[in-house]
Amino acid sequence: MITAQGMWTETEQVLAQQALAIARQRETDTILAVVREQAAAVIGLEDLWQISDFLNARRFDLDGKYMFDCETLIFAFARLVKEGWLSPEELAGLDRDKVARIRSLSRM
Amino acid sequence: MITAQGMWTETEQVLAQQALAIARQRETDTILAVVREQAAAVIGLEDLWQISDFLNARRFDLDGKYMFDCETLIFAFARLVKEGWLSPEELAGLDRDKVARIRSLSRM
Repeated sequence: MITAQGMWTETEQVLAQQALAIARQRETDTILAVVREQAAAVIGLEDLWQISDFLNARRFDLDGKYMFDCETLIFAFARLVKEGWLSPEELAGLDRDKVARIRSLSRM
Repeated sequence: MITAQGMWTETEQVLAQQALAIARQRETDTILAVVREQAAAVIGLEDLWQISDFLNARRFDLDGKYMFDCETLIFAFARLVKEGWLSPEELAGLDRDKVARIRSLSRM
Protein backbone atom coordinates (compact mmCIF):
# COMPACT_ATOMS: atom_id res chain seq x y z
CA MET A 1 0.00 0.00 0.00
CA ILE A 2 1.30 3.40 -0.98
CA THR A 3 0.68 5.90 1.79
CA ALA A 4 0.32 9.62 1.14
CA GLN A 5 3.62 10.09 2.90
CA GLY A 6 5.24 7.53 0.61
CA MET A 7 4.18 9.64 -2.33
CA TRP A 8 6.42 12.48 -1.17
CA THR A 9 10.13 11.72 -1.27
CA GLU A 10 12.21 12.89 1.65
CA THR A 11 13.67 15.66 -0.49
CA GLU A 12 10.18 16.75 -1.47
CA GLN A 13 9.03 16.73 2.12
CA VAL A 14 11.91 19.00 3.11
CA LEU A 15 11.19 21.29 0.18
CA ALA A 16 7.48 21.33 0.98
CA GLN A 17 8.14 22.28 4.58
CA GLN A 18 10.41 25.11 3.45
CA ALA A 19 7.77 26.35 1.00
CA LEU A 20 5.12 26.24 3.74
CA ALA A 21 7.41 28.21 6.06
CA ILE A 22 8.06 30.85 3.39
CA ALA A 23 4.37 31.30 2.64
CA ARG A 24 3.47 31.35 6.33
CA GLN A 25 6.05 34.06 7.03
CA ARG A 26 4.82 36.06 4.06
CA GLU A 27 1.19 35.92 5.17
CA THR A 28 2.15 36.60 8.79
CA ASP A 29 4.21 39.65 7.81
CA THR A 30 1.30 40.98 5.78
CA ILE A 31 -1.17 40.52 8.64
CA LEU A 32 1.24 42.15 11.09
CA ALA A 33 1.73 45.12 8.77
CA VAL A 34 -2.01 45.53 8.25
CA VAL A 35 -2.72 45.45 11.98
CA ARG A 36 0.11 47.86 12.81
CA GLU A 37 -1.21 50.27 10.21
CA GLN A 38 -4.84 49.93 11.28
CA ALA A 39 -3.94 50.27 14.96
CA ALA A 40 -1.94 53.42 14.34
CA ALA A 41 -5.00 54.97 12.69
CA VAL A 42 -7.70 53.98 15.20
CA ILE A 43 -9.84 56.86 16.40
CA GLY A 44 -12.75 55.19 18.13
CA LEU A 45 -14.04 51.86 19.35
CA GLU A 46 -15.63 51.04 16.00
CA ASP A 47 -12.15 51.05 14.45
CA LEU A 48 -11.01 48.66 17.16
CA TRP A 49 -13.90 46.27 16.58
CA GLN A 50 -12.95 46.24 12.90
CA ILE A 51 -9.45 45.14 13.86
CA SER A 52 -10.99 42.61 16.20
CA ASP A 53 -13.16 41.18 13.40
CA PHE A 54 -10.14 41.09 11.10
CA LEU A 55 -8.03 39.23 13.68
CA ASN A 56 -10.78 36.74 14.50
CA ALA A 57 -11.22 35.97 10.80
CA ARG A 58 -7.47 35.61 10.23
CA ARG A 59 -7.10 33.35 13.24
CA PHE A 60 -9.89 31.09 12.03
CA ASP A 61 -8.42 31.12 8.53
CA LEU A 62 -4.87 30.30 9.63
CA ASP A 63 -5.94 27.43 11.86
CA GLY A 64 -4.40 24.34 10.28
CA LYS A 65 -3.61 26.14 7.03
CA TYR A 66 0.15 25.66 7.34
CA MET A 67 0.13 22.27 8.98
CA PHE A 68 2.46 19.83 7.24
CA ASP A 69 0.29 16.89 6.22
CA CYS A 70 1.19 14.77 3.19
CA GLU A 71 -2.46 13.81 2.77
CA THR A 72 -3.51 17.36 2.04
CA LEU A 73 -0.33 19.07 0.84
CA ILE A 74 -1.44 19.40 -2.76
CA PHE A 75 -4.60 21.21 -1.70
CA ALA A 76 -2.74 23.32 0.85
CA PHE A 77 -0.27 24.48 -1.81
CA ALA A 78 -3.02 25.10 -4.35
CA ARG A 79 -4.75 27.35 -1.86
CA LEU A 80 -1.54 29.23 -1.05
CA VAL A 81 -0.82 29.77 -4.75
CA LYS A 82 -4.40 30.90 -5.36
CA GLU A 83 -4.18 33.36 -2.47
CA GLY A 84 -0.84 34.67 -3.67
CA TRP A 85 1.27 33.56 -0.70
CA LEU A 86 3.36 31.24 -2.85
CA SER A 87 4.28 31.19 -6.52
CA PRO A 88 4.36 27.86 -8.39
CA GLU A 89 8.01 28.64 -9.22
CA GLU A 90 8.80 28.29 -5.55
CA LEU A 91 7.70 24.67 -5.75
CA ALA A 92 10.35 23.83 -8.33
CA GLY A 93 12.06 20.68 -7.14
CA LEU A 94 8.81 18.89 -6.46
CA ASP A 95 7.76 16.19 -8.89
CA ARG A 96 6.38 17.88 -12.04
CA ASP A 97 3.03 16.14 -11.82
CA LYS A 98 2.52 17.50 -8.33
CA VAL A 99 3.33 21.04 -9.43
CA ALA A 100 0.99 20.67 -12.41
CA ARG A 101 -1.83 19.50 -10.12
CA ILE A 102 -1.17 22.36 -7.73
CA ARG A 103 -1.21 24.89 -10.59
CA SER A 104 -4.38 23.40 -11.96
CA LEU A 105 -6.18 23.31 -8.60
CA SER A 106 -5.07 26.84 -7.81
CA ARG A 107 -7.05 28.13 -10.75
CA MET A 108 -10.32 26.65 -9.50
CA MET B 1 -46.23 54.08 41.55
CA ILE B 2 -42.72 55.49 41.57
CA THR B 3 -40.81 54.33 38.53
CA ALA B 4 -37.04 54.02 38.47
CA GLN B 5 -36.97 56.94 36.07
CA GLY B 6 -39.08 58.99 38.48
CA MET B 7 -36.40 58.49 41.11
CA TRP B 8 -33.93 60.45 39.01
CA THR B 9 -34.73 64.11 38.54
CA GLU B 10 -34.22 65.60 35.11
CA THR B 11 -31.12 67.39 36.35
CA GLU B 12 -29.77 64.13 37.72
CA GLN B 13 -30.47 62.34 34.48
CA VAL B 14 -28.51 64.94 32.53
CA LEU B 15 -25.68 64.76 35.04
CA ALA B 16 -25.70 60.96 34.94
CA GLN B 17 -25.50 60.92 31.16
CA GLN B 18 -22.58 63.34 31.27
CA ALA B 19 -20.79 61.18 33.85
CA LEU B 20 -21.37 58.07 31.73
CA ALA B 21 -19.96 59.85 28.69
CA ILE B 22 -16.86 60.97 30.61
CA ALA B 23 -16.17 57.47 31.93
CA ARG B 24 -16.83 55.90 28.54
CA GLN B 25 -14.40 58.28 26.85
CA ARG B 26 -11.80 57.59 29.54
CA GLU B 27 -12.06 53.83 29.19
CA THR B 28 -12.13 54.06 25.39
CA ASP B 29 -9.01 56.24 25.33
CA THR B 30 -7.22 53.75 27.57
CA ILE B 31 -8.18 50.78 25.39
CA LEU B 32 -7.10 52.65 22.24
CA ALA B 33 -3.76 53.55 23.81
CA VAL B 34 -3.15 49.96 24.94
CA VAL B 35 -3.93 48.55 21.50
CA ARG B 36 -1.81 51.14 19.69
CA GLU B 37 1.09 50.33 21.98
CA GLN B 38 0.65 46.55 21.71
CA ALA B 39 0.24 46.71 17.94
CA ALA B 40 3.39 48.76 17.52
CA ALA B 41 5.32 46.07 19.41
CA VAL B 42 3.94 42.94 17.72
CA ILE B 43 6.57 40.57 16.43
CA GLY B 44 4.67 37.39 15.64
CA LEU B 45 1.21 35.92 15.37
CA GLU B 46 1.09 35.03 19.05
CA ASP B 47 1.31 38.74 19.87
CA LEU B 48 -1.58 39.37 17.52
CA TRP B 49 -3.73 36.68 19.10
CA GLN B 50 -3.10 38.33 22.45
CA ILE B 51 -4.44 41.58 21.06
CA SER B 52 -7.34 39.64 19.60
CA ASP B 53 -8.14 38.08 22.99
CA PHE B 54 -7.88 41.49 24.64
CA LEU B 55 -10.24 43.08 22.11
CA ASN B 56 -12.78 40.28 22.32
CA ALA B 57 -12.81 40.56 26.11
CA ARG B 58 -13.15 44.36 26.01
CA ARG B 59 -15.95 44.16 23.49
CA PHE B 60 -17.85 41.69 25.62
CA ASP B 61 -17.18 43.80 28.70
CA LEU B 62 -18.30 47.08 27.14
CA ASP B 63 -21.53 45.66 25.76
CA GLY B 64 -24.29 47.51 27.61
CA LYS B 65 -21.90 48.88 30.23
CA TYR B 66 -22.53 52.51 29.32
CA MET B 67 -26.18 52.23 28.42
CA PHE B 68 -28.29 54.89 30.14
CA ASP B 69 -30.91 52.98 32.13
CA CYS B 70 -32.39 54.46 35.30
CA GLU B 71 -33.17 50.97 36.57
CA THR B 72 -29.52 50.03 36.78
CA LEU B 73 -27.69 53.36 36.98
CA ILE B 74 -26.64 52.94 40.60
CA PHE B 75 -24.96 49.63 39.80
CA ALA B 76 -23.45 50.94 36.59
CA PHE B 77 -21.86 53.85 38.44
CA ALA B 78 -20.68 51.63 41.30
CA ARG B 79 -18.90 49.44 38.77
CA LEU B 80 -17.31 52.40 37.00
CA VAL B 81 -16.08 53.80 40.31
CA LYS B 82 -14.77 50.39 41.35
CA GLU B 83 -12.92 50.02 38.05
CA GLY B 84 -11.49 53.53 38.32
CA TRP B 85 -13.22 55.05 35.28
CA LEU B 86 -15.12 57.53 37.41
CA SER B 87 -14.47 59.13 40.78
CA PRO B 88 -17.37 59.61 43.24
CA GLU B 89 -16.55 63.32 43.21
CA GLU B 90 -17.62 63.42 39.58
CA LEU B 91 -21.10 62.43 40.71
CA ALA B 92 -21.50 65.51 42.88
CA GLY B 93 -24.85 67.00 42.04
CA LEU B 94 -26.67 63.71 42.35
CA ASP B 95 -28.81 63.18 45.41
CA ARG B 96 -26.50 62.40 48.37
CA ASP B 97 -28.16 59.08 49.12
CA LYS B 98 -27.49 57.91 45.61
CA VAL B 99 -23.83 58.86 45.80
CA ALA B 100 -23.54 57.12 49.17
CA ARG B 101 -25.05 53.93 47.74
CA ILE B 102 -22.73 54.11 44.74
CA ARG B 103 -19.70 54.58 46.97
CA SER B 104 -20.79 51.73 49.18
CA LEU B 105 -21.48 49.33 46.31
CA SER B 106 -18.21 50.24 44.63
CA ARG B 107 -16.31 48.83 47.59
CA MET B 108 -17.91 45.40 47.28
